[in-house]
Amino acid sequence: MSERIWTAGLVVIGDEILSGRTQDKNVAQIAIWLNVQGIQLAEVRVVPDTQDRIVEAVNAIRTGYDYCFTTGGIGPTHDDITVDAIAVALGVPVVIHPEARSLMERYYETRGGLTEARLRMARVPEGADLIPNRMSGAPGIRVGNLFILAGVPHITAGMLDALTGTLEGGRPVVSATIGSWAAESEIAGLLGETERAFEGVAIGSYPFFREGRTGANFVVRATDPALVDTCAAELGARLSAAGYEVVKGGI
Amino acid sequence: MSERIWTAGLVVIGDEILSGRTQDKNVAQIAIWLNVQGIQLAEVRVVPDTQDRIVEAVNAIRTGYDYCFTTGGIGPTHDDITVDAIAVALGVPVVIHPEARSLMERYYETRGGLTEARLRMARVPEGADLIPNRMSGAPGIRVGNLFILAGVPHITAGMLDALTGTLEGGRPVVSATIGSWAAESEIAGLLGETERAFEGVAIGSYPFFREGRTGANFVVRATDPALVDTCAAELGARLSAAGYEVVKGGI
Repeated sequence: MSERIWTAGLVVIGDEILSGRTQDKNVAQIAIWLNVQGIQLAEVRVVPDTQDRIVEAVNAIRTGYDYCFTTGGIGPTHDDITVDAIAVALGVPVVIHPEARSLMERYYETRGGLTEARLRMARVPEGADLIPNRMSGAPGIRVGNLFILAGVPHITAGMLDALTGTLEGGRPVVSATIGSWAAESEIAGLLGETERAFEGVAIGSYPFFREGRTGANFVVRATDPALVDTCAAELGARLSAAGYEVVKGGI
Repeated sequence: MSERIWTAGLVVIGDEILSGRTQDKNVAQIAIWLNVQGIQLAEVRVVPDTQDRIVEAVNAIRTGYDYCFTTGGIGPTHDDITVDAIAVALGVPVVIHPEARSLMERYYETRGGLTEARLRMARVPEGADLIPNRMSGAPGIRVGNLFILAGVPHITAGMLDALTGTLEGGRPVVSATIGSWAAESEIAGLLGETERAFEGVAIGSYPFFREGRTGANFVVRATDPALVDTCAAELGARLSAAGYEVVKGGI
């Protein structure tokens, strides 16, 4: 019986990532969180703060995968255009969400009051629900299979936390890592043969050069934990038989 | 006179990025390098080690921008399928590049000799040139407007170094940063007005919470250094006039 695989794509919105000014941290954090939900991150696109480019990427991702996440561009300033772009992508108007408005009013009550700029953060594509934000004022937004998150990593993390357990997924991918002081070019054949012998398993090979020596870590991945264990044990046995030192858990 | 803007897209190839196991470092490093060449990174796609997905992304990026870069998947193992996928994308066969073969022979002369797996790293899409790799054996590959680079960041860096000054570009984007201890929601109007007053300038707003206080850095970006200086000075003056402390160079 073949298993239903749940997939997501991520659109990272922000000139600051594409200029190299800011090192993205959300891809890895969202990938790891999604896997716990039983959803595989299948594609990421990084696009600038430009409406057409956001619309194009969001439409490709939301129709191509089960879920579409976006990060960035939901603040109060002129370069925060994610909500407007996504409304265009969905063909719906932008509206003020009454609950978001109340949240903003309460949040800014002791912080100078709700201004026009701050009210921008209560705008959502019509039909949207809010994603709680316990770190700062502005909530995230869920509309259909689209999840609009903040770009600042610790705020993104809080929103992911609020979503934990609410998305339908399948079995998470589990992995086992084996390290070996072998040049990967020496054991390429052995690796490929081992992968082919275990259907549903992917083996990644990640070479490194450390302490003056060449080595590689091999990551065995599948949704079936027993299959991962069996394949990792077999790979370890084959590497040992070929004369290589094997380090369980990786080097 | 409007300036020709040169653009590039990047395809990051690798299950390890999409699983969250590996934190990507190449987007930022390539973005910064491209800007020095006068080329703007306009889009990034991260795709798995799957031929169809690589082909689709590479074709979208190489036809959508002046240059297409890829990172990852050019090693000797079964999960290194970038060359094959790009050959499919271009509709050309994969051939052994004679110079790459010689390089591999020399490199492995004292390292156990050239095996079938190692010879894989001399395979290129027909019509390709090599990009020198001074860090390890396998070269990068240039074919048309496509640049196929290694995924391991320090090896990628060496290949970028070898390409420095060889790609046609325009004027680099320059930037000036101004920091202020202001909530960005307080100065959103001022920011937007300042940006609109300077055509060709983009102002990014990057809020932070530090030492118990709220602040933001504003990055003024354009290809004209004089315009950047004038706009940054004007923004600083407007922030000061509105009663905010301004820190040149950012906080």
